[in-house]
Amino acid sequence: MNEPTRPRPPTGGALLRAPVTDAITRAALDELAESGYAGMSMEAVARRARVGKAALYRRWNSKQEMVEQIVAGLSWHAVPVPDTGSLRGDVDSYLAHAAALRQDLQATRIIADLSAEAIRNPRLAQVFATALREPRRAAGTAMLRRAVERGELPADLDAELALDCLVALAHARPQALTASGELADPYPRDNLVEVVLTALAACRT
Amino acid sequence: MNEPTRPRPPTGGALLRAPVTDAITRAALDELAESGYAGMSMEAVARRARVGKAALYRRWNSKQEMVEQIVAGLSWHAVPVPDTGSLRGDVDSYLAHAAALRQDLQATRIIADLSAEAIRNPRLAQVFATALREPRRAAGTAMLRRAVERGELPADLDAELALDCLVALAHARPQALTASGELADPYPRDNLVEVVLTALAACRT
Repeated sequence: MNEPTRPRPPTGGALLRAPVTDAITRAALDELAESGYAGMSMEAVARRARVGKAALYRRWNSKQEMVEQIVAGLSWHAVPVPDTGSLRGDVDSYLAHAAALRQDLQATRIIADLSAEAIRNPRLAQVFATALREPRRAAGTAMLRRAVERGELPADLDAELALDCLVALAHARPQALTASGELADPYPRDNLVEVVLTALAACRT
Repeated sequence: MNEPTRPRPPTGGALLRAPVTDAITRAALDELAESGYAGMSMEAVARRARVGKAALYRRWNSKQEMVEQIVAGLSWHAVPVPDTGSLRGDVDSYLAHAAALRQDLQATRIIADLSAEAIRNPRLAQVFATALREPRRAAGTAMLRRAVERGELPADLDAELALDCLVALAHARPQALTASGELADPYPRDNLVEVVLTALAACRT
């Protein structure tokens, strides 16, 4: 199992001023959310950050490198590993985190855009796997393993299937976003917790 | 409930030659899969279809209109409404369809790209809702209603939640695509059918 990786700092070196790097990072995220990876340019990011293009190229060699480092440093993937002492509490906490992320329209836009881009771009896909997917799956697997140890899930749990089901169900609702362009109302979370607990218990090898 | 809509024919009129329209449609789908909506241009589509740009503009006024009409006419949304006589059979058929779609890398790429684009583009979102999402949801709702009538699902089924769970679980596995850039092995479908049936029965109001 992979340990969660630490985000690399998004700066190129100690000589680069952090406030400028922060401004560029914010501008790049705004551009990503508005124009998408394919549509964003270094020029547009520089203009939005009110810096020269040289300030970007001192920090990153390319748009791809900039986006990779910024995404790796984002807090989205700092998924709290819920460890409340019960599977029910952990699932409730996990779903709450997913619902909170869903309220962040900028994050939702960027995640959807980069997910699509990653299917075309193997290098980007590898960065996201390392920075985002593997830490999340490691945290989820640990959560499920504790539940098996407590006897809350069957000993023959198919952890891979269970984790995919947990993730899919936690994000079942946000998919409605893409259809209407607006955020859908959340379900009563208690109902969804019941569904997830029932589904997880059915994930057997 | 919405009836499934019929796809509009992707041609602008009887005077436009169908073979040319077909060639442009194929070229547009190839470009969409390779470059994404934001990255594709009418020029590139015309070049790939070996026609002049005028041939495109005789059919569609803009890239957006071209993509909208082509997507509305695609067979992806012709989701067969499984009606096998049992919920288990219907779910099995539904999951088989989802797994088959997952094998179509071009469709997977285009769906991911346009889903991301739709979050930025309300008009495109509306077209996809009408052409893709609503017919699929109507078919799914009908399937669940028949199961309730047969007593296979509880009378107090939360159909909205159940449908979201069905869709999410049917597509749980393809999400792995974006991380590795490759298609993940499917689960044994029997296991997933069990999980889905168990989860659906837990979706109560």
